[in-house]
Amino acid sequence: MIDPSLDFRINAERFREDFDILSQIGATPEGGVHRPSFSESHLEARAWLRQRILEDGLSFRSDGAGNYSAFLECGPQNSPTLLLGSHLDSVISGGRFDGALGVTAALEVLRTVKEVDRRLPVNLEAIDFTDEEGTLVGLLGSRALAGLLKQKEFQSPRGGREELQNGLARARLSEQDLFDAQRNAASLAGYLELHIEQGPRLQKAGMTIGVVTAIVGICSYRLSFIGRADHSGTTPMTERLDAALGASSFILGVRQTILEEFPDCVANVGALNLSPGAFNIVPERADLSLEFRSSDSSSYQRLEEVLIQLARTKAQDYGLRLEIEFLGKHFPTPMSSIAQQAIVQAADALGLAHTPLVSGAGHDAQSLAEMCPAGMIFVPSEGGASHSPREFTRWEDCVNGANVLLGAALRMAEIVGGRRTWKE
Amino acid sequence: MIDPSLDFRINAERFREDFDILSQIGATPEGGVHRPSFSESHLEARAWLRQRILEDGLSFRSDGAGNYSAFLECGPQNSPTLLLGSHLDSVISGGRFDGALGVTAALEVLRTVKEVDRRLPVNLEAIDFTDEEGTLVGLLGSRALAGLLKQKEFQSPRGGREELQNGLARARLSEQDLFDAQRNAASLAGYLELHIEQGPRLQKAGMTIGVVTAIVGICSYRLSFIGRADHSGTTPMTERLDAALGASSFILGVRQTILEEFPDCVANVGALNLSPGAFNIVPERADLSLEFRSSDSSSYQRLEEVLIQLARTKAQDYGLRLEIEFLGKHFPTPMSSIAQQAIVQAADALGLAHTPLVSGAGHDAQSLAEMCPAGMIFVPSEGGASHSPREFTRWEDCVNGANVLLGAALRMAEIVGGRRTWKE
Repeated sequence: MIDPSLDFRINAERFREDFDILSQIGATPEGGVHRPSFSESHLEARAWLRQRILEDGLSFRSDGAGNYSAFLECGPQNSPTLLLGSHLDSVISGGRFDGALGVTAALEVLRTVKEVDRRLPVNLEAIDFTDEEGTLVGLLGSRALAGLLKQKEFQSPRGGREELQNGLARARLSEQDLFDAQRNAASLAGYLELHIEQGPRLQKAGMTIGVVTAIVGICSYRLSFIGRADHSGTTPMTERLDAALGASSFILGVRQTILEEFPDCVANVGALNLSPGAFNIVPERADLSLEFRSSDSSSYQRLEEVLIQLARTKAQDYGLRLEIEFLGKHFPTPMSSIAQQAIVQAADALGLAHTPLVSGAGHDAQSLAEMCPAGMIFVPSEGGASHSPREFTRWEDCVNGANVLLGAALRMAEIVGGRRTWKE
Repeated sequence: MIDPSLDFRINAERFREDFDILSQIGATPEGGVHRPSFSESHLEARAWLRQRILEDGLSFRSDGAGNYSAFLECGPQNSPTLLLGSHLDSVISGGRFDGALGVTAALEVLRTVKEVDRRLPVNLEAIDFTDEEGTLVGLLGSRALAGLLKQKEFQSPRGGREELQNGLARARLSEQDLFDAQRNAASLAGYLELHIEQGPRLQKAGMTIGVVTAIVGICSYRLSFIGRADHSGTTPMTERLDAALGASSFILGVRQTILEEFPDCVANVGALNLSPGAFNIVPERADLSLEFRSSDSSSYQRLEEVLIQLARTKAQDYGLRLEIEFLGKHFPTPMSSIAQQAIVQAADALGLAHTPLVSGAGHDAQSLAEMCPAGMIFVPSEGGASHSPREFTRWEDCVNGANVLLGAALRMAEIVGGRRTWKE
């Protein structure tokens, strides 16, 4: 086998130019970008991408889910495709790197391979997935491609049904089109994604490259502690059924549980509403949003049981009733060992320090992992900031990440390329 | 001195008739009433009151604050007026008894005195105060009458400026009119109010009559714990600055502080908002509404210091910043000893079990206490429920309360009547 990563590198200047142009589309005064799925700025970013793909002499493709691709026919006829990609949509007032880095790096890898006219056992495709961030549905484009969408999830999508319909209309798509984006597993040789870490671990460890071993499972619940609304001036403290007490005690208990019993997991109570919500009425209801994550299936299940039991106990402690609404669950997704190996070898060949890492955030790679060998490369996030204008990755790290993507892609092309079915 | 309460009683049937008619105005399906200040149902209740006053052969009066009165000239010329009253407005979806009981009882007392043609050293007035509940401003009519209003409080009243202006317009009043309602202290002989307890103490103690010794001071703050918004999947638990932790720990600490150090005070955190408020973002801000009450001036001040220090400590414990916004303060108001004495004597004369009691809720009597001897009579609230359709007082207790109001009024008329200035 050749060692392709020593042959050539991506063009850092050309890569930078693309990244900088993209950072201006939907730019916010705070230095981030605002490009929610199918917003005007998001559509503008995609229009720019399409133009760039055509200027680069690559084939432009799009599918029923609105995914945009550059295609390079560098493999034999009817050979499978190695997908490289990420997403151009952002969270509300997000950062410049989340997603955009992976799309521009993937495009740059195709240009580089095209430039040196390298023939591979596979074709290459750089893809921009629709709605990764979940402004509308979440991992929408990648799940459509992997055939994981279910009709019923469009009834009350997380961004609201009307917003979804309006967004699809702006992109000139329909709900039915989304299902047409599904691809045959045999058509794919694998998937690789470059992404910022969105956490502080690489920077703290002094590492340049994170080799993602798994994407965490994410589970969410709405929990409601229910007591009794009483006049806060005339009801003695000992006779109240104050819903805020159960919720507060639960919030502190969640943190303690994670720190003491589940040090490899995380949990968050990100929203809490007390009602009726007046200064002078003892809170009758406390509705809170619970989310927890784990990369290990058995901890994941045990954590779910422990947290729900914690809520029950806290409700009991304060004489409250508990309502439990299960909202959804992604199971932990291990990354392909072939992909991990290709990434490690590419980083080694470039002399870059690397470390295995679990992704605490969800990514399109978890959809792709259902149908082909999928892997992710992380580069350091300064201070761990993400989903924020504070999000920052040093340009040197971005370039290193793109070169690892190139090297890993060429290696995966060699390893997986010839196969028509995928077994690890 | 005569013992007037043994002479005659109110007409329980006539009193009941008024109360039942009033309960139908703005009635809610749950069995309560919805009569926010200057709402259509509130104005309808007042129109009924005016009509009733005229039918009863009493003089009808209204002032610039929209207060409605029945006037009975039963004293010598230019003699001061003994006010009896309460309010016909309700909280949103409130109960039938809060306020309405005191107004109908006051009217019944005037009718009873008129019926027996009793001459007193004072005139009698039954008054319905505007906006006691604070849908718009709070104690609006009574504070206008006592000259306690300040122009600046109309800039951002608690119910919103537009709502205040719309309400005044519906009642054909202006902000300037409100100031015209002020009365001369020398014109008042005193103030007595019958009200439901809105708490469970009388019922628990098996008492029929509460003799209010003081109205609590009420103080409110908005406290904001401020941390940092981070990605809840990628930020280790130990590196978060989670605003929800400070707020939760404060909420539990408030309860503990009251139970352990201030058993005679109460406190409430009735509202709490986490922002940005997403499942997957560590809460950056927790804004909460704190209110606390005490009938004792020195505990009141110490409690304020202790709770603010508690907030500071909790913020520090979790690495958070604290923003403190003082919203307002009523000082504890002792009730007149003359009024208390008159109420005790009236209850004794009727053979009704009574007990001294602090009012945990604010009342118009605290405005009147600034200018004349003021007192309050409480009757039991079943289960302590109030500001709710569950609010209920047995009719027998209502009649007892009205007879105590009659007896106490006749006594106060004798004690205070002759004076032109008020000193206890």
